[in-house]
Amino acid sequence: MEIIVPKDRLAKALNIVSRITVSLKSAFPMLNNVLLRAEDGKLSMTATDMEMATVCNIGAKVVKKGVITAPAKLLAEMVANLSKDEEVKIVVKDGKLTVSAGKDRAVINGAAADDYPELPVIDEEKAVKLQIGVDGLKRALGSVMIASSNDTTRPALTGVYFNTFEGSLYLAATDGYRLAEMKFVDKVESEVFAIVPTSSLSEVLRSMNDEIEEVEILIDEAQVRFRMGEMEFMSKLIGGSFPDYRQLIPKKTDTNMVLERAECVRVTKLAAVFAREMGGSIVCEADKEKGVLVIGSVASEFGENNSEIVTKIDNGGKVTLNSRFLLDALNVVEEERIRFGFSGKLSPVVIKNEKNENYIQIIMPLKS
Amino acid sequence: MEIIVPKDRLAKALNIVSRITVSLKSAFPMLNNVLLRAEDGKLSMTATDMEMATVCNIGAKVVKKGVITAPAKLLAEMVANLSKDEEVKIVVKDGKLTVSAGKDRAVINGAAADDYPELPVIDEEKAVKLQIGVDGLKRALGSVMIASSNDTTRPALTGVYFNTFEGSLYLAATDGYRLAEMKFVDKVESEVFAIVPTSSLSEVLRSMNDEIEEVEILIDEAQVRFRMGEMEFMSKLIGGSFPDYRQLIPKKTDTNMVLERAECVRVTKLAAVFAREMGGSIVCEADKEKGVLVIGSVASEFGENNSEIVTKIDNGGKVTLNSRFLLDALNVVEEERIRFGFSGKLSPVVIKNEKNENYIQIIMPLKS
Repeated sequence: MEIIVPKDRLAKALNIVSRITVSLKSAFPMLNNVLLRAEDGKLSMTATDMEMATVCNIGAKVVKKGVITAPAKLLAEMVANLSKDEEVKIVVKDGKLTVSAGKDRAVINGAAADDYPELPVIDEEKAVKLQIGVDGLKRALGSVMIASSNDTTRPALTGVYFNTFEGSLYLAATDGYRLAEMKFVDKVESEVFAIVPTSSLSEVLRSMNDEIEEVEILIDEAQVRFRMGEMEFMSKLIGGSFPDYRQLIPKKTDTNMVLERAECVRVTKLAAVFAREMGGSIVCEADKEKGVLVIGSVASEFGENNSEIVTKIDNGGKVTLNSRFLLDALNVVEEERIRFGFSGKLSPVVIKNEKNENYIQIIMPLKS
Repeated sequence: MEIIVPKDRLAKALNIVSRITVSLKSAFPMLNNVLLRAEDGKLSMTATDMEMATVCNIGAKVVKKGVITAPAKLLAEMVANLSKDEEVKIVVKDGKLTVSAGKDRAVINGAAADDYPELPVIDEEKAVKLQIGVDGLKRALGSVMIASSNDTTRPALTGVYFNTFEGSLYLAATDGYRLAEMKFVDKVESEVFAIVPTSSLSEVLRSMNDEIEEVEILIDEAQVRFRMGEMEFMSKLIGGSFPDYRQLIPKKTDTNMVLERAECVRVTKLAAVFAREMGGSIVCEADKEKGVLVIGSVASEFGENNSEIVTKIDNGGKVTLNSRFLLDALNVVEEERIRFGFSGKLSPVVIKNEKNENYIQIIMPLKS
């Protein structure tokens, strides 16, 4: 193998693929490596942790075709520190990669590609295909992922549920204490019911850059593929069934108001300072006559607090919430004003944008 | 006690003083607290961890004088989240602080000031006084502190040595493997030999802001005080004697060259990628005839590298260095071009600015 590639593009691609490789001390050393394949005017770089795989292709001057694997993080870090604006030459001989650029030269011990794991292939004929603008995908994933769980004993909750309902595609996530749902695509032709690991989606989000405008998503029975420009991310789906979450979303709430998001964040943070010693428990009390929502902490060893937000309220009521869940929710709502509703101490709290009805979050109250 | 203070200044001051208070679970709960004293049109805030103390004064409308202590981090975080541009009112009654601003209100359980530790007082008559521009102090501390040690078994090495020599004041630090020295004040009238804890100096550096131009430094037998605007930092000095470091600084070196700092950083990082598995060991080899300095790693399991820097060299030579020490040194040198010198494999490496002779770093070589 012998190729010449521009330094910047190589560095960018290696930075992305090397991220999912495992640490050097792993029991499967081959998973530390990136697979490099040079052919047809391009260099293709592949990495996998067996749950997901990343492939990046960049244009290359291929003097001699070939395939090899090399330690991904080492190679990525090395290339990142090569001279700016130089062309990088990679020559493979006897299992060693000689990488040179300007007055820099390195020899890296590679490993034959034969032992590199086979990546699963998506059957493009049978899979459901979606074409999404990058901005829309970023927004949707960012808004929904926050509600997913880290608890691996309930795998289905560690992912985002892509699901069709009445002809539209929804994304949903829940950790059992809160839930976020967004209507993602208005009309889809085929049914989809797939749980995509949140960890894989985080990787997809991290790899997006300004050069890409559209993402092609392909979902089959067992896996999903995101194709963005010259990059591809494949991930296994999570098996098992997602909770029937729609029945948990209240059709309406008794106490309803519109709040300034920024003010609500500030006041929640203030109460959270005092609530820390009480497991984060804060109280929201709506007074219809006075037209104020009072957010405060419960008295603890250190003290207590409350703040008033002036707003129009249809019915009085009181509910106790985890301050962190409320802050997480407020931080991903998009509009400057939000709808905040609840129905007494036991029913879920509902948070929405003031205008856009496509997104909803619910938070279960704490006992008080 | 009853006072009214502007929110922004109060938040800033509390943020600074609360930093040195210890965590809430400490064995000396009083050290969690900030001492608040209201008198003569100002609010004075004091915190200490018994090694150092911080005092901040801000102008206040004092309706009723008084003194109290309250949990510092809780109070700081709370005030930070109050409404912008509001005046904050603090009223103390029966050991409770009622803090209010706009529509926010909190009650914090305070503790009587009687049990708060006495701060030591510097005898201004006997102490040595220095007046330093903020920029100069920042630069000097930043350049010297990097060489100080974290190893508390040799306390003298965990500080910066303020010392007079031939009528000038020098700052020096060493961890036994490297050393940094800067001529700090050209002419001083009294002798100073004081080891100031690096941790205290970090705190002083962190608290500097754009509003301050000059720092007054007062040093006596046992302590140092930095006064910057309305803030004061006091710190105990470290006892014991600092190594007689001047004899370690080579008068001259055999192999000498001038290098572009940025290029040297890049090439050292590149070698460090490969050197990681070899304890960070990198080799610098100067070739007088070719006029190149070659910086490279030693061959390891993963590979090896080398990069050439073209420069004028007076004598050939070779030395092995810890890449992290070299990077640390290069990162704090100020000029774009640096002087790099050494004398074979066993003598210290010397790094200086190309022009400014007031600063020197030395690094002991590794065995090779």
